[in-house]
Amino acid sequence: MKVVLGYSGGLDTSIIVPWLRENYDAEVVCMAADVGQREDLSRLHDKAARSGASELVVEDVRAEFVERFAWPTLRAGAVYSRRYLLGTSIARPLIAKRQVEVARRIGADALAHGCTGKGNDQVRFELTFAALAPDLRVIAPWREWDIRSREDVLAYASERGITLDVDPTRLYSRDENLWHISHEGGPLEDPACEPEESMFKWTVAPEAAPDEAESVDVAFERGTPVALGGTRMDGVALVEKLNALGSRHGVGRADVIEDRVVGMKSRGVYETPAGTILYAALRELESLTLDRRSIALKDELAPRYADLVYEGRWWTPEREALEALVGELLRDATGVVRMKLYKGSAWAVSRESERSLYREDLATFGESASYDHADALGFIKLFGLPMRAAAARDTREGDRVVAELLREVDRTATR
Amino acid sequence: MKVVLGYSGGLDTSIIVPWLRENYDAEVVCMAADVGQREDLSRLHDKAARSGASELVVEDVRAEFVERFAWPTLRAGAVYSRRYLLGTSIARPLIAKRQVEVARRIGADALAHGCTGKGNDQVRFELTFAALAPDLRVIAPWREWDIRSREDVLAYASERGITLDVDPTRLYSRDENLWHISHEGGPLEDPACEPEESMFKWTVAPEAAPDEAESVDVAFERGTPVALGGTRMDGVALVEKLNALGSRHGVGRADVIEDRVVGMKSRGVYETPAGTILYAALRELESLTLDRRSIALKDELAPRYADLVYEGRWWTPEREALEALVGELLRDATGVVRMKLYKGSAWAVSRESERSLYREDLATFGESASYDHADALGFIKLFGLPMRAAAARDTREGDRVVAELLREVDRTATR
Amino acid sequence: MKVVLGYSGGLDTSIIVPWLRENYDAEVVCMAADVGQREDLSRLHDKAARSGASELVVEDVRAEFVERFAWPTLRAGAVYSRRYLLGTSIARPLIAKRQVEVARRIGADALAHGCTGKGNDQVRFELTFAALAPDLRVIAPWREWDIRSREDVLAYASERGITLDVDPTRLYSRDENLWHISHEGGPLEDPACEPEESMFKWTVAPEAAPDEAESVDVAFERGTPVALGGTRMDGVALVEKLNALGSRHGVGRADVIEDRVVGMKSRGVYETPAGTILYAALRELESLTLDRRSIALKDELAPRYADLVYEGRWWTPEREALEALVGELLRDATGVVRMKLYKGSAWAVSRESERSLYREDLATFGESASYDHADALGFIKLFGLPMRAAAARDTREGDRVVAELLREVDRTATR
Amino acid sequence: MKVVLGYSGGLDTSIIVPWLRENYDAEVVCMAADVGQREDLSRLHDKAARSGASELVVEDVRAEFVERFAWPTLRAGAVYSRRYLLGTSIARPLIAKRQVEVARRIGADALAHGCTGKGNDQVRFELTFAALAPDLRVIAPWREWDIRSREDVLAYASERGITLDVDPTRLYSRDENLWHISHEGGPLEDPACEPEESMFKWTVAPEAAPDEAESVDVAFERGTPVALGGTRMDGVALVEKLNALGSRHGVGRADVIEDRVVGMKSRGVYETPAGTILYAALRELESLTLDRRSIALKDELAPRYADLVYEGRWWTPEREALEALVGELLRDATGVVRMKLYKGSAWAVSRESERSLYREDLATFGESASYDHADALGFIKLFGLPMRAAAARDTREGDRVVAELLREVDRTATR
Repeated sequence: MKVVLGYSGGLDTSIIVPWLRENYDAEVVCMAADVGQREDLSRLHDKAARSGASELVVEDVRAEFVERFAWPTLRAGAVYSRRYLLGTSIARPLIAKRQVEVARRIGADALAHGCTGKGNDQVRFELTFAALAPDLRVIAPWREWDIRSREDVLAYASERGITLDVDPTRLYSRDENLWHISHEGGPLEDPACEPEESMFKWTVAPEAAPDEAESVDVAFERGTPVALGGTRMDGVALVEKLNALGSRHGVGRADVIEDRVVGMKSRGVYETPAGTILYAALRELESLTLDRRSIALKDELAPRYADLVYEGRWWTPEREALEALVGELLRDATGVVRMKLYKGSAWAVSRESERSLYREDLATFGESASYDHADALGFIKLFGLPMRAAAARDTREGDRVVAELLREVDRTATR
Repeated sequence: MKVVLGYSGGLDTSIIVPWLRENYDAEVVCMAADVGQREDLSRLHDKAARSGASELVVEDVRAEFVERFAWPTLRAGAVYSRRYLLGTSIARPLIAKRQVEVARRIGADALAHGCTGKGNDQVRFELTFAALAPDLRVIAPWREWDIRSREDVLAYASERGITLDVDPTRLYSRDENLWHISHEGGPLEDPACEPEESMFKWTVAPEAAPDEAESVDVAFERGTPVALGGTRMDGVALVEKLNALGSRHGVGRADVIEDRVVGMKSRGVYETPAGTILYAALRELESLTLDRRSIALKDELAPRYADLVYEGRWWTPEREALEALVGELLRDATGVVRMKLYKGSAWAVSRESERSLYREDLATFGESASYDHADALGFIKLFGLPMRAAAARDTREGDRVVAELLREVDRTATR
Repeated sequence: MKVVLGYSGGLDTSIIVPWLRENYDAEVVCMAADVGQREDLSRLHDKAARSGASELVVEDVRAEFVERFAWPTLRAGAVYSRRYLLGTSIARPLIAKRQVEVARRIGADALAHGCTGKGNDQVRFELTFAALAPDLRVIAPWREWDIRSREDVLAYASERGITLDVDPTRLYSRDENLWHISHEGGPLEDPACEPEESMFKWTVAPEAAPDEAESVDVAFERGTPVALGGTRMDGVALVEKLNALGSRHGVGRADVIEDRVVGMKSRGVYETPAGTILYAALRELESLTLDRRSIALKDELAPRYADLVYEGRWWTPEREALEALVGELLRDATGVVRMKLYKGSAWAVSRESERSLYREDLATFGESASYDHADALGFIKLFGLPMRAAAARDTREGDRVVAELLREVDRTATR
Repeated sequence: MKVVLGYSGGLDTSIIVPWLRENYDAEVVCMAADVGQREDLSRLHDKAARSGASELVVEDVRAEFVERFAWPTLRAGAVYSRRYLLGTSIARPLIAKRQVEVARRIGADALAHGCTGKGNDQVRFELTFAALAPDLRVIAPWREWDIRSREDVLAYASERGITLDVDPTRLYSRDENLWHISHEGGPLEDPACEPEESMFKWTVAPEAAPDEAESVDVAFERGTPVALGGTRMDGVALVEKLNALGSRHGVGRADVIEDRVVGMKSRGVYETPAGTILYAALRELESLTLDRRSIALKDELAPRYADLVYEGRWWTPEREALEALVGELLRDATGVVRMKLYKGSAWAVSRESERSLYREDLATFGESASYDHADALGFIKLFGLPMRAAAARDTREGDRVVAELLREVDRTATR
């Protein structure tokens, strides 16, 4: 049996290699994806070999991650649990898809992952496997073995002579990629407990940010970010640059109580500097270039898109249908938004677009040739007709009174 | 003819009094509502008399404003145009309702307001009139007369010997009450133009806020704010205190491109310090005490509630139905959230509730007796069944392959 | 150990009694609910005793079933899978609740049900147990034992000397109560196969229905059915009478491909004569007495209510919140609808209500004093303003042209 | 001035020609669209000339009507007011678009229509004009002139020596095209009054339909109807054939109280035989080939699509976005549905598709290799976790009890 294991080089996946060999008599091919996490993946080759893997395949998926996963999610305005920008959720279907591709290439029989049985990631990996490779067997060691704690993991490794890089002071469970770094567990498990400053990895504390605000112009074309400060760049570069900028100003932290797919509430703290700035900037541009009902439609569907992504249902007609819809709605979302970053906040101070629907001649309360105040009379009368009909019904002699009244008003209106 | 005029003492309503007398041969009774605007309403009696009003009635509606208008809107999570907390929108139906009550008391024949024909407020006033007094005539001078500019207004007044307090440097159109102060017009009419600092009236600039963050404990009972820092207080006091606190830290500014009821885009800048803090705090408490689907239902309906309020459709079965729904959904939203205020931002750092649905024993990735990892297998299999069925359909020989596979997995699962 | 078993007297629950005694060493108390199924429940006492039960408790829940389960579901307009009126789904939470009550009364330790591991009912029973008795153990024999087929059941019974009433020709799996009878399985498992006429139990075939149509007046008060043909009656009587009437005319059959909670598609055929007529009649009354937006809100939430009911999430704040909302929305749904029944169809031919919002003076295309055609000009101009702004943006020199145009139109309008 | 008038040859448009000439000194070009109404349009040339038109352009838009307007609306599942299949609403934007095209071709300055100021059609025409020709002037005589009744119309015509084909017994206002014929006004204005049989024009009364049911196989490709009874045909032919078939069996009548765009309730009776059958057939096919969530998404958005169409907002990004979404969702809706027509009803008796997601092996309650009953345990536990957490919170000592309980159940589950 040949298994492709999603491999990170962490404690768990390190012992999964020997476990698969022992329990499934499997040849284990490891796959690590470069999604922009800030670590040296080249070190993993040795590590995987020492664990007993027959091979480690490293896949650089950063460009695909930004263009095909982060951008569509940003464009959809998808936010889970009101604050979470889905950094981990969007990486899983991509990594799992690559795992399937590797499996096909080498003719593997099974796919394995190192996710625990309590989290969301097992769902995301396995739904991708179900969608793209329903014929391949799935092995989820955490749901099968008797290992229950970190101590068990270490014991298992040491019995097999595997050396693990253990940081005994590590308190948090983290996930990192180009879009975000997340923190879970440890002291965060008490929702009354404020995160300690040392937990954060990317962003400075708002209090430690520069005393001077900084501005950045973000340009979009049809809803996709294309330039910063007037310089066009590819997605990966744009996100990296904006992450650096946002981090310097303490922008992008979110402390969230969320509901996992498997039913329980949990707490996550996220640092998503570029994402936070881009979501805010795109919203501003939409407010300028989309009509009210298009915005309402987008906003209505955004939580549904977020649910799809969070729950691992990426590879579905439903998500693709929403992506098609968003593509149409954003066709005029071209323009530039100036964002100001300061002490943990990011807000728009200016927006410009050749596709703007804002018309000063209509908006102004000053004199304007384009608008006749009298139009409002007819509008309000018809807009409020249902309410007036209801009130007439509920008023004694309402009918007679109202009929007379309307006649009178009409007479005035047509003077 | 007897008319009740919604009166502010500003330029417009000051000349509406003589205009109504001249054009409708009307006796004009003015009504001013104390909604918490920071001005001395007692000065209005003289002013109204000088304009020719037969009487000025001042109504203190602050408590009703907070308890019956601001709280329900907060509880519903209603936000218009993604950022606007509806400060003006919630005041209009209350003021208009009082106007109707005064009209009934004195036996008036008509209601008048000083709103222009381009804005939202005319709609809000007249929809309240339509709902509560469909038999009374409505007079909207701005839609009838030839006055088109401020100069026209001043000329009209001076011809009649009325002295107006004119501030020639006044650039913005403002509305103020307990919940917010709004700014429109002037330089804001260019969406690319950053608001000048001097425009803001309540809040300091984030840059000018204290270098030390400040925390405040906000307590809710069934979704309604009841105490600050452990001290119970009534709604008016709570909002005032929190406004002061938030303003000191530059919290609550929102610069919004919005769509008016009458169809055009416009720009408003709002300062809503207490509201901003309370919305954020309530959301945190909900994330702890409401189940995922209840939150989703609330969030789905919040924009609809916001539309109703913004469009002046307050007095409708639809709004009352939503209020009833929110009441049920928030029955467990009792607890305390600690909010940290710093340089323009407000965020939660701690939340506690006896009605919490968060269970550390379920959330932890550490060992726990309450959760069996193996349950996830069955969950994922059934949760993903539709995707697997679709994949099987789309795979050549999918059926056979999948059937075998499932058999095999089942065998494993039941070992 | 003491177990309360939801008991029907059918094959499955008959062998569950001995199985529980053997495998859990349990004393088994059976509970049968009279939900209006057309069978003699008194015969069950002997049967249960013969199976080894220590007691059979029979609960008449018919009135509660109609008033507290069928009416709210009807009022909410809840339909699952576009056609299914939820007859089985609404019975489960009630039966399970009674089971819990019996368990409390007799001090039982566990609850058992005879639902298979592939269907919806296991979910509905167990979610009620989870909500109302999280401390009681749940036993679901079908998910534990090795019995896989009807033959296994018969063998198991005969080994223990239990005689079962077996109908060897029985093809379908059925569920019956006051609201409906359902049919599943057998030939229906092929979605290309038309149901055979002999399968139906309540309704005649449309072809066999009388050649004369028949009418019936259905009266509602605030959305709840209260009278038929002018005669007030309680809910149970009303449903029974309307079932008889509808069945005679072949009304209320639905052949549905639906998605089960546990993920697969299945097919059910339902006979719900009274329900079908009542849903249609209430919709008519709503169209007369509710404003457009209230109807839209109801219709938007109806599928959510249906999902809640279908998925067994009856005892949730979400469902109660929706019920509260519906209560407000239906406060004017009082009136009489005349339904015509003929050869399988039911349709409204007349509706009357003192709470009607329909006004002939507004609707007529004839002359009418209450409506000024000119109002429509202002309405359309403002209603279409966003489209005009977009078109102007997209037209070369659009701005100039449109501005001129608007000026001209305005001039005409104010002639 | 040159005006293009949407012309039907009826009373109203016949006198609009001279009225435009007299009041606007205009050259009037008439345009009549062949949308499949059952009348001889060639007769209109003389008629238009006699009224004083300089030209009559007849446009055959039947194919475009079906392919670009009826099909997308059907595919979206759009139904207004729960029953109305939008036959008139979808014709207006097409006719108005053609009118704009004619205006461009001949260099006209203005567009005119003969819709009254109380109905929906004025909105639909003018919103199309606003979207496609914001620079052209719009003339709506019914909102300008003093003519108020049919008698006024006749007098106006006779004064000018124009002979009109008047049917003095005509009671109803009708609109007819390939998709439907509608009836409004006259006795229908009383919602308590049953439509008289003589009003109906296309369909026989259910009572007069054949005593034998008839079946028809409707084939769809990706959600679009392509064949009847195994014979491929173009859209126009398919609708015509199915209209004939449905009419013969009295299928497709709908008697609807609806809410007009301009605010009042009105009543319409519609005959839409082909549409009724196609909507029902497509729904059946969707239930077989779309997953549950895709269906839910479609159903959630269908009323929004219907509102867009009904309100005349056809030419908007919002509608196009929804069309794109529907296109994705329907990509597997390929197959054949057998519909049975009988005495006013149409229902599916069989559905088949190579893209079916229905799997007998999963659905059956009989023995099956593809499903392990035990999976349901894990599913229900996690699906119900939030409810259990809430119940535990609400139960005295709930925590302890539940924790113990779960431990015990887990132990059993992992035996």
